[in-house]
Amino acid sequence: MALIVQKFGGSSVADPEKVRRVAGIIAEAYNAGNDVIVVLSAQGKTTDKLIAMAKEYNPNPSKREMDMLLSTGEQQSVALCAMTLQAMGIPAVSLTGWQVDFKTNSNYSNAAIKSVGQERIRRELDAKRVVLVTGFQGVNKYDDITTLGRGGSDTSAVAIAAAMHADLCQIYTDVDGVYTADPNKVKGAKKLDEITFDEMLELASMGAKVLHNRSVEMAKRYNVDLEVLSSYERLPGTKVRGVNKLEQAEVSGVAKDVNVARITLIGMQDIPGMAFRTFRCLAKENINVDIILQSLGRNGIQNITFTVARADADQACDVLEAHIDELGFAGLDVDKHVAKVSIVGAGMMLTSGIAAKMFDALASRKINIDMISTSEIKVSVLVNEEDADRAVQAVHDKFFGD
Amino acid sequence: MALIVQKFGGSSVADPEKVRRVAGIIAEAYNAGNDVIVVLSAQGKTTDKLIAMAKEYNPNPSKREMDMLLSTGEQQSVALCAMTLQAMGIPAVSLTGWQVDFKTNSNYSNAAIKSVGQERIRRELDAKRVVLVTGFQGVNKYDDITTLGRGGSDTSAVAIAAAMHADLCQIYTDVDGVYTADPNKVKGAKKLDEITFDEMLELASMGAKVLHNRSVEMAKRYNVDLEVLSSYERLPGTKVRGVNKLEQAEVSGVAKDVNVARITLIGMQDIPGMAFRTFRCLAKENINVDIILQSLGRNGIQNITFTVARADADQACDVLEAHIDELGFAGLDVDKHVAKVSIVGAGMMLTSGIAAKMFDALASRKINIDMISTSEIKVSVLVNEEDADRAVQAVHDKFFGD
Repeated sequence: MALIVQKFGGSSVADPEKVRRVAGIIAEAYNAGNDVIVVLSAQGKTTDKLIAMAKEYNPNPSKREMDMLLSTGEQQSVALCAMTLQAMGIPAVSLTGWQVDFKTNSNYSNAAIKSVGQERIRRELDAKRVVLVTGFQGVNKYDDITTLGRGGSDTSAVAIAAAMHADLCQIYTDVDGVYTADPNKVKGAKKLDEITFDEMLELASMGAKVLHNRSVEMAKRYNVDLEVLSSYERLPGTKVRGVNKLEQAEVSGVAKDVNVARITLIGMQDIPGMAFRTFRCLAKENINVDIILQSLGRNGIQNITFTVARADADQACDVLEAHIDELGFAGLDVDKHVAKVSIVGAGMMLTSGIAAKMFDALASRKINIDMISTSEIKVSVLVNEEDADRAVQAVHDKFFGD
Repeated sequence: MALIVQKFGGSSVADPEKVRRVAGIIAEAYNAGNDVIVVLSAQGKTTDKLIAMAKEYNPNPSKREMDMLLSTGEQQSVALCAMTLQAMGIPAVSLTGWQVDFKTNSNYSNAAIKSVGQERIRRELDAKRVVLVTGFQGVNKYDDITTLGRGGSDTSAVAIAAAMHADLCQIYTDVDGVYTADPNKVKGAKKLDEITFDEMLELASMGAKVLHNRSVEMAKRYNVDLEVLSSYERLPGTKVRGVNKLEQAEVSGVAKDVNVARITLIGMQDIPGMAFRTFRCLAKENINVDIILQSLGRNGIQNITFTVARADADQACDVLEAHIDELGFAGLDVDKHVAKVSIVGAGMMLTSGIAAKMFDALASRKINIDMISTSEIKVSVLVNEEDADRAVQAVHDKFFGD
């Protein structure tokens, strides 16, 4: 017997038929003798509909009242799913964020989790009930309802799993696991049986949108074993853990990120502190810089090239130009037609020649590498956007081809 | 400056335009310098829709989960109305039953109010906010959400007005007050400026569905001044109070109730205790008896005639026939084509000849009176159902005609 947390997203509980399918998955875990906690999102497009509804009453509603409104979506979800389980003869009880003492700070619409109470959930589990808890929502110290923002329900599930010391937190999604590359775009992409938290975080930040990073970070911090799996396929999914229990693959996945722009400051003075000053200007405006390439100085002059999120590119240029006196560059070049291709693997640090193997794959397809960045578990290269898909396929073939 | 509770029903807040109208009424009271607490029902047909939705998941959902589901309707209402007030520049905050510590027992779907907290509401009023509270719902000692059943939101408003010692509790409805008779059916029906709680209770039990009796009973118990008025007309409504501040009218209203059936037990033994035994049988089955007429005994034999709610008539007959050995009657007659016509007035007890004036009105139209029942503030007569509307008009003409 184990304590399992199961999380289902909005599309998995969109209508009575889908809720019955989900209830079947829950019932199976319960009937196998497990304690089962279920975390649900609002049904289907409910949250979007409520947001649109609010705009009819106030084009710019206060976040406090918005959270009050939106939290009704998950409350309806858990009540309807509890009714469905009861119709199947499974004892079940639905609980809201405040009922399980899911405490957050007061940052309405994007609240941070502070703690999750164990008492009420424990009491219901001891009474042999399936406990359905609203995802995405909590309560602050004023007893006001808050919501967690993007990735909220996944994070709710992990926080509850951590608080209750669950043996496993299953995140049911519309994909059946984590792949070595996007299976819709890359031939030969394979489902992974296991992946580490760090690999998952790197893949997610590269655009593999299976789990929100916030939930993976929390799972890593509290060492909650995750499993990503499909509510349709009923097959084993991908385990996400602190340490890979299988033999570590040198590379776990290949990812592409097109949300990138490259900015070059041309003709800066080659004196100490120029890079620091440049990135301080951007940091003050909350613009994150990713890959950085500083050219060797020549004749007292150097170039600094770096990447930012594509949406931040225009603002970054404005900020830099506003500081042109301080930074003293001669020119500024922006390229929004670039993409980042990355390989991720916790086994990489144990194996030499991984980066070289990647560069070889790209060179053999005549794909030009613009910038390179490496970490202990990742190698990223910047390429032209038009080459990106070919680059991913080439690298994937090299590492995962037969 | 006064503390005013305003309650608006579901049809008054059914869409953005209607909510804006309601917000205008609230803003007027707030801008006049009053502390304003607003109690809202769920929008339009929301509750009915949620009930229908639940049936798709479970034809017989548990009441606890049903209350969890239904309570989202009022929560959406108060959040949207708060947004609307904020858009008009009026500070406002929405609160649920549990947030204002609206305590009930655990009789899900028909819970009884135990207490209402003052602290949170007081704090919000002191911060000069309009406080919008969900009607119809509360929380029990387990922190589970309950709903109050029929007439719930009116009763919520009165309970909050009582707890907060409000100066006035305004119940906005789709009629503009309480009339001397149903204005849709009786020519010359007039709106009353004032009426006492007892008169209102009698009129409501006679079928004048302006306020639910439960809310009037609570207002009477805690001496909460009520006002019934229209959210469309913006005219003074009818005040409902413990004591009528105007000169007491001898008769306040004429009402008709067709939810009546007459049952006669024929040929009972004329010995003491037969009536007691008869009504004990019915009381055990929770069947309420209204008017009772016991004929004078002759030759040791008597008849007992009484009225019950029409819906209870068949069950009442079954119960009586099951006890025929004990009760020893020779025959049983049921008539479902009767109606009760009543005059109600707190001034009646001070004036003689009121009943005679009513009987005169009926006799002049050749309407036969079947049974008569009187109390301190009411005279009821039973007539054939087909004569009922003519009877109401005749009596109304007599007391209110020019």
